Amino acid sequence: MAETNALDALIQALRRLPGVGVKSAQRMAFHLLQHDRPGAQLLSRALQDAAGHVHHCERCHTFTEDVICSTCLDPRRDHSQLCVVETPADQSALERTNAYKGLYFVLMGKLSPLDGVGPKDIGLKKLFDRASDGLVREVILATNFTAEGEATAHVIAEGLKARGLTPTRLARGVPVGSELEYVDLGTIAHALVDRR
Amino acid sequence: MAETNALDALIQALRRLPGVGVKSAQRMAFHLLQHDRPGAQLLSRALQDAAGHVHHCERCHTFTEDVICSTCLDPRRDHSQLCVVETPADQSALERTNAYKGLYFVLMGKLSPLDGVGPKDIGLKKLFDRASDGLVREVILATNFTAEGEATAHVIAEGLKARGLTPTRLARGVPVGSELEYVDLGTIAHALVDRR
Ligand SMILES: [Zn+2]
Ligand SMILES: [Zn+2]
Repeated sequence: MAETNALDALIQALRRLPGVGVKSAQRMAFHLLQHDRPGAQLLSRALQDAAGHVHHCERCHTFTEDVICSTCLDPRRDHSQLCVVETPADQSALERTNAYKGLYFVLMGKLSPLDGVGPKDIGLKKLFDRASDGLVREVILATNFTAEGEATAHVIAEGLKARGLTPTRLARGVPVGSELEYVDLGTIAHALVDRR
Repeated sequence: MAETNALDALIQALRRLPGVGVKSAQRMAFHLLQHDRPGAQLLSRALQDAAGHVHHCERCHTFTEDVICSTCLDPRRDHSQLCVVETPADQSALERTNAYKGLYFVLMGKLSPLDGVGPKDIGLKKLFDRASDGLVREVILATNFTAEGEATAHVIAEGLKARGLTPTRLARGVPVGSELEYVDLGTIAHALVDRR
């Protein structure tokens, strides 16, 4: 597809999306130009809008178009609880449970020394200041149960303890609806240790 | 990620890309906004440019920013040969072989009755007119060796024969460098039938 500069430029630009190689980028460009030009225009404007208007909430770090996001400003939420998550998608998963009514701190990442992501990149100082502002009484660590998520939770827990705060962590255990036979052994072991 | 309208709009727009579900769209939006805003701006402009300037070559149907593409206008190419391919990516694969110096007709698709893609959608009348213009002496069918590609080649061959032209088809056979043991039986059977 070396015929047009505009097409080449589009394929190159699509390759900057995570998980998109040259074949996918070609297929996407072909699809948009052959079958969905309105989609191309729509995506172009959406990118422009989002890149121009979306920034981080001053309190919780999540994406917002305001200075402080609507969750942080919501007076019906419990401002004494602070739940620490890795991404807005994780926050959104917690929200869908309807089981949590406190506030959030969104790290927008996780500690990952190999990728050069340190404490500063995920706003740990801001989180520690926030957690010790006198209003927050419980910090719930809801980073993912992956190696990097666990390491991040550990570092945050240590930092909070140094400031006299003891965070809680989401319980590990057997997923609801699953049969023990098909659950991995590590999960069963944790479910045993964390038994109620 | 229900916090910002601009972000939601971006996620929805990304979902129009082929093969992108809601999870991938969220990941892409997060990546662009958190780690690659220049990439978002670049992609936005590239989409705008391509949707505005790329159209179809009047002769061969491929994508071009001109009225007639540079391949069709190239006097060093053999204008008596016409190779029929499904997509610009297929044309590009043939070009990389350096084994073909004729012209192309790019269907920009394949016959697919189930998806509502008929002869008109892939420009068959234009192809037949082109093939019988007196200049073209050989039509090579290089549609893919899939069920739909084969069916498309068959329909084109019938149409050309009705106009007194006999097209050729790319040879089916064992891929170069492969061991028979690992080649599928259909391919081996075709290689036997098409043996030289
Ligand atoms: Zn906020
Ligand atoms: Zn052309």
